Amino acid sequence: LDQLNGTLKEWVAIESDSVQPTPRFRQELFRMMAVAADELRRLGASVDSVDMGSQQLPDGQSLPIPPIILAELGNDLKKPTVCFYGHLDVQPAAWGDGWLTDPYTLTEVDGKLYGRGATDNKGPVLAWINAVSTFQALEQDLPVNIKFILEGMEEAGSIALEELVQKEKDRFFSGVDYIVISDNLWVSRKRPAVTYGTRGNSYFTVEVKCRDQDFHSGTFGGILNEPMADLVALLGSLVDSSGRILIPGIYDHVASLTEEEKNMYKSIDLDLEEYRNSSQVKKFLFDTKEEILMHLWRFPSLSIHGIEGAFDEPGAKTVIPGRVTGKFSIRLVPHMNASVVEKQVTDHHLEDVFSKRNSSNQMAVSMVLGLPPWIANINDSQYLAAKRAIRTVFGTDPDMIRDGSTIPVARIFQEIIGKSVMMLPLGAVDDGEHSQNEKINRWNYIEGSKLFAAFFLEIAKLHE
Amino acid sequence: LDQLNGTLKEWVAIESDSVQPTPRFRQELFRMMAVAADELRRLGASVDSVDMGSQQLPDGQSLPIPPIILAELGNDLKKPTVCFYGHLDVQPAAWGDGWLTDPYTLTEVDGKLYGRGATDNKGPVLAWINAVSTFQALEQDLPVNIKFILEGMEEAGSIALEELVQKEKDRFFSGVDYIVISDNLWVSRKRPAVTYGTRGNSYFTVEVKCRDQDFHSGTFGGILNEPMADLVALLGSLVDSSGRILIPGIYDHVASLTEEEKNMYKSIDLDLEEYRNSSQVKKFLFDTKEEILMHLWRFPSLSIHGIEGAFDEPGAKTVIPGRVTGKFSIRLVPHMNASVVEKQVTDHHLEDVFSKRNSSNQMAVSMVLGLPPWIANINDSQYLAAKRAIRTVFGTDPDMIRDGSTIPVARIFQEIIGKSVMMLPLGAVDDGEHSQNEKINRWNYIEGSKLFAAFFLEIAKLHE
Repeated sequence: LDQLNGTLKEWVAIESDSVQPTPRFRQELFRMMAVAADELRRLGASVDSVDMGSQQLPDGQSLPIPPIILAELGNDLKKPTVCFYGHLDVQPAAWGDGWLTDPYTLTEVDGKLYGRGATDNKGPVLAWINAVSTFQALEQDLPVNIKFILEGMEEAGSIALEELVQKEKDRFFSGVDYIVISDNLWVSRKRPAVTYGTRGNSYFTVEVKCRDQDFHSGTFGGILNEPMADLVALLGSLVDSSGRILIPGIYDHVASLTEEEKNMYKSIDLDLEEYRNSSQVKKFLFDTKEEILMHLWRFPSLSIHGIEGAFDEPGAKTVIPGRVTGKFSIRLVPHMNASVVEKQVTDHHLEDVFSKRNSSNQMAVSMVLGLPPWIANINDSQYLAAKRAIRTVFGTDPDMIRDGSTIPVARIFQEIIGKSVMMLPLGAVDDGEHSQNEKINRWNYIEGSKLFAAFFLEIAKLHE
Repeated sequence: LDQLNGTLKEWVAIESDSVQPTPRFRQELFRMMAVAADELRRLGASVDSVDMGSQQLPDGQSLPIPPIILAELGNDLKKPTVCFYGHLDVQPAAWGDGWLTDPYTLTEVDGKLYGRGATDNKGPVLAWINAVSTFQALEQDLPVNIKFILEGMEEAGSIALEELVQKEKDRFFSGVDYIVISDNLWVSRKRPAVTYGTRGNSYFTVEVKCRDQDFHSGTFGGILNEPMADLVALLGSLVDSSGRILIPGIYDHVASLTEEEKNMYKSIDLDLEEYRNSSQVKKFLFDTKEEILMHLWRFPSLSIHGIEGAFDEPGAKTVIPGRVTGKFSIRLVPHMNASVVEKQVTDHHLEDVFSKRNSSNQMAVSMVLGLPPWIANINDSQYLAAKRAIRTVFGTDPDMIRDGSTIPVARIFQEIIGKSVMMLPLGAVDDGEHSQNEKINRWNYIEGSKLFAAFFLEIAKLHE
């Protein structure tokens, strides 16, 4: 137990920040990957640190990309093979910036282990490693073959991961039966969860241009089709005040709600009052837990992010922006298709609204990102095994949850490798990943390790 | 003539940039004001350089404000007294930044005198001074008493000017009959103009707030009244695609159009094709010269400037801004009143639109600037005198024009001193004030000086 904490402390102490592209942080990332590779070797795994080359930054600087670790332990053809994905890079953190303790010194207070990366994602990676070493400590045969894919660039967009997965599809991944990711959180403080879906995202830009330069509103105000007026009308046509998306046809391919799915939302452990308070939101668009969860997970949503090219600073500048670009995105859910959505948004809706304005400006719409949603079959063996393991370790059924945001890695594995992917989070809802005072509860960390061990046994049983 | 050019060359060579708040430029400003004071003393004027103290910049730095020059020449109670306002500071300029010649070296090419400040406003100030010295050279009695008020902070918002005018109202300004400003341009390349009005400006901010921090659109998209959706709807309710302002009552106090006024637009020398080309605008909202001029000068206009607090950078950030502030302004025309407009916009229109949305966010509207329009009585003696002088010097009637933008100094003089204010521009429409390759035509500069001299004679005649 103390050894477990000890290693987490060591790992948290490495400032493996992948978001700030500086040579120092890159060095820390390389050190982190080397330390993890050593840990896996101690476990008896064969480890391959794959050189990922370097990346060119927008400012011309070139920085090396930390290696991706591919490791394997056991290759018994009679056993199922579970591949664990995790990442060892972290978000930026600085003591003084709202942290009550040094973010890079793992500090226990009231059963909570505070430190950057504690829950996202160093803790869960170590919990998985510890589950494996528990079998070794008890001199028991490991019931499954284990593979690891560990990267160091997740917080920076998992550069190069997809390419490697594609390349290793028929080599490293050839024998893999299941892929497990433990890189998200429960929706509860107490109740474990299994995640079976994430929303996708189609991100749009819409540019309205009169000319490249701005105008002075005194000199030109009154005789122009002002780009901002056009853009505001376009953005205002997208969603109504109840959150309903106004793009014709957009709901056509949204999966219909089954009774079975409906029941899953009812049983989920979400304290609405607490959720509202911690969100600091006075009132949500919906009043019930079920409606809220469904609108976060299984219905599309449209958010307007901002405008590039307009006046965005403090003060009172009397400018008529000459060319402005609005940005909005639609979170996609099964069975929406990004290409269909692109057509609905661009060719039909926005062209329509714009042409009705009879403006002399030019409009250009572009879908700059089209990430599909991910959904798993929750009747796959590993989901059954996870539920049983949770019942064994926590004495309860898990919350069957989705994530409203887009986690491309789940879809990458599912699409390229073609095997069942499951997200099995360990952290509680209040762990504060990405924010100050990130923590993992000691209890979650330890029980999480047991959960993974129980999962190995259950999935092996299902294969007998 | 060469002497006239020589002095302008000297003045342009002083980098009296008031926009960039650096000690070096301030030093240049002080030098500029001293050189001008010397010039006025050579003219025989009694000169008072009024110390204006210093200004505190937002970054804590303190910079001295250049003195304002109050000068007077003659105090014959039988003669009318004309006060000339001008400024000797300039906009920033840098050779290489699109300038074909060194901006601080007055350079003549094809009858055009290129240099920063050539037309805005050093040239016109010197033309006025030259008009005075012409009488002296010809050993003629100056037909009017002359006063000068010259400042060095116009491009930086005329800090401290209003306060000084207020203070000197019953002293320096007590005998003043007419105020002349020559700090704008003709609407033509060839035809002189007299300016009798400027639009005012009421600048609004409308803030919509859910909470201070932003949200992640994956984690919260679908359950929030998103501030951007509210704001876009609010901004979209202000003006239609034909430029018509949709705020109820906003046109109630706009002066009705008389036949006499209508006729003035007809005779104005504006080449629409050239105007469109030089503006780089494909199509204006209106097709005729008269409609365009009226919508720039005598009808209000509404421009949306931008949004503060939203995502405004390049890239695809999936943020739901928690608090956003939209900015727009309405150019005011006679007889609109800023306080009435404030009520119409705030209490009636925006509150209405927002309450209909039934949003749980908070809205706060504020009018941060309320500058009234300025309009002069074009039947005042000095307008008559200017027209006669223009006929004498240029052999044509002037274009009677207004300016669509807000020039507070005209209203300050008219309101505080209570005397007739006139703007008598010298520069041609293509002089490029504030932009690269600013110039004044040699012809405009020389004829302008004659125009001012003829104006002295005409105004004296009207007083006989």
